[in-house]
Amino acid sequence: MGEMLDTLIIGAGPAGLSAGIYGLRAGLKLLLLEKAAAGGQVQSTYAVDNYPGLPGISGMDLSLKMKEHFEKVGGTIMTAEVTGVQKEAERRFLVKTDQGDFACKSVLLAAGAHHAKLGVPGEEELAGCGVSYCATCDGAFYKGAVTAVVGGGNVAVEDAIFLARFCEKVYLIHRRDTLRAEKALQDVLLALPNVEILWDTTVECMQGDGELESLVIRNLKTDEQKELAVEGVFVAVGILPDTERFTNLAKTDEQGYFIAGEDGRTSEPGIFVAGDARKKPLRQILTAAADGANAITSAAEYIREFT
Amino acid sequence: MGEMLDTLIIGAGPAGLSAGIYGLRAGLKLLLLEKAAAGGQVQSTYAVDNYPGLPGISGMDLSLKMKEHFEKVGGTIMTAEVTGVQKEAERRFLVKTDQGDFACKSVLLAAGAHHAKLGVPGEEELAGCGVSYCATCDGAFYKGAVTAVVGGGNVAVEDAIFLARFCEKVYLIHRRDTLRAEKALQDVLLALPNVEILWDTTVECMQGDGELESLVIRNLKTDEQKELAVEGVFVAVGILPDTERFTNLAKTDEQGYFIAGEDGRTSEPGIFVAGDARKKPLRQILTAAADGANAITSAAEYIREFT
Repeated sequence: MGEMLDTLIIGAGPAGLSAGIYGLRAGLKLLLLEKAAAGGQVQSTYAVDNYPGLPGISGMDLSLKMKEHFEKVGGTIMTAEVTGVQKEAERRFLVKTDQGDFACKSVLLAAGAHHAKLGVPGEEELAGCGVSYCATCDGAFYKGAVTAVVGGGNVAVEDAIFLARFCEKVYLIHRRDTLRAEKALQDVLLALPNVEILWDTTVECMQGDGELESLVIRNLKTDEQKELAVEGVFVAVGILPDTERFTNLAKTDEQGYFIAGEDGRTSEPGIFVAGDARKKPLRQILTAAADGANAITSAAEYIREFT
Repeated sequence: MGEMLDTLIIGAGPAGLSAGIYGLRAGLKLLLLEKAAAGGQVQSTYAVDNYPGLPGISGMDLSLKMKEHFEKVGGTIMTAEVTGVQKEAERRFLVKTDQGDFACKSVLLAAGAHHAKLGVPGEEELAGCGVSYCATCDGAFYKGAVTAVVGGGNVAVEDAIFLARFCEKVYLIHRRDTLRAEKALQDVLLALPNVEILWDTTVECMQGDGELESLVIRNLKTDEQKELAVEGVFVAVGILPDTERFTNLAKTDEQGYFIAGEDGRTSEPGIFVAGDARKKPLRQILTAAADGANAITSAAEYIREFT
């Protein structure tokens, strides 16, 4: 099982890698576990244009740069799937994985989140080529274009308002005849001349040769099917934290996001959270990385209290 | 005076530049004012090794990359000194500068902060070459070295504890015979075998040929002067927000930091704060940039409420 670690970090996206960089530079003994490829959601992002200092970098390259940075300061990423975390005593947690168990004084959860998919033909193939799950991230690539947003909650309506500032036209496609989004947002949306809401409508498939060209949509009341030409579609039907295996460890909200301030301290001493798995106002690569720095700094303070 | 801006950003450090990048990508009409060079404190930082993705970059290069990123998305930095900000009406602020006045719907303060200097000979010349004001930032460059911290408050004691993890020896130089730092921190510090506290002692000058080699120190009780060989000195005698001209705009703490959560919303609707000028747990380039993204997103929401 090896020596007692100061911190075990779960997840090698921007939050986990940043926590690792800060932690190693602070002299902590730590290990970073990741079940898939380093970079998390970033790794499968086509282009990232809002990480200050690295304009227009591909998600793959940014992931690689962050991973290399972590390794350059002496970090190691172990490919392992965490099956559970147990508190054994004060300042002693046991992290169980398919590669063995690890004892540590603190755990930093950077498990991330993922966007819910529609699950329709063409969606996966065209992801990053016209199909996006984040208007804040990718909207700016569609200036002057015709786009669509799918969904009816706050995020979908916010995305449509956001895109309407610079897109020629924005369709909001919603399967019901009312929006779930709050009234104030709806009022703003309904006043926009270049937004058209397609009520009672679902997307049946996404089409295009290498780049998205159109959506096949169906009106659920009339059963009418038609093709809608768009250059970009933003799927905003929910984001889900990847925290199922960890929700016993500290307080979460009803969706499973850990409740913690920007310092990453959860309700359980010794358990810290960073990145998209935290309840927070803005989920971005940049804010995830900042979370990592904050949470590992809190972890270092926690460890220091007991040395 | 020109057209009404959505947001006027004051300060072109990482917080202001990041806010500008996010704001422009969100379609906001904005202008960034800076009285000196873009980059803020970063610009005069020798090496930055904790901005994830850009290991070992010089502060000058990182500043330049962020500035170029902002310009690439269409941003403009105007060299101007702000003399004051007036609220003229709801959603209408007048920012007065030595280059004219600007009307805007919201103001984002990213005015930064600066570390208090000792003001002794050699300090300025050796800054970045052995003389540092941030152990979290630069400590890792001194693994195995003999270093000193100057100060007696929480930050000084935290810095000494932090450095003691990986430095061979750490001197804590304090001009009084008691520390201001909280008791719990003092207890941790006093238990460390490789920390030596030099009480009633001041630094008189810093010496070295291109790189810091030693400090000349004086014991105020005995008046004895001697030379102390160190490779690094961390000056921790305070950090001061650059907010004097703005403290009338929204609530600050007693030191002048604006009170706002991670979303950057101050006590005054329409006034947002990001970066080192905010009361926050960790002041880093990365967390300043994240603040910029958060605060401009809040500003965009604020503006949207009234359109």
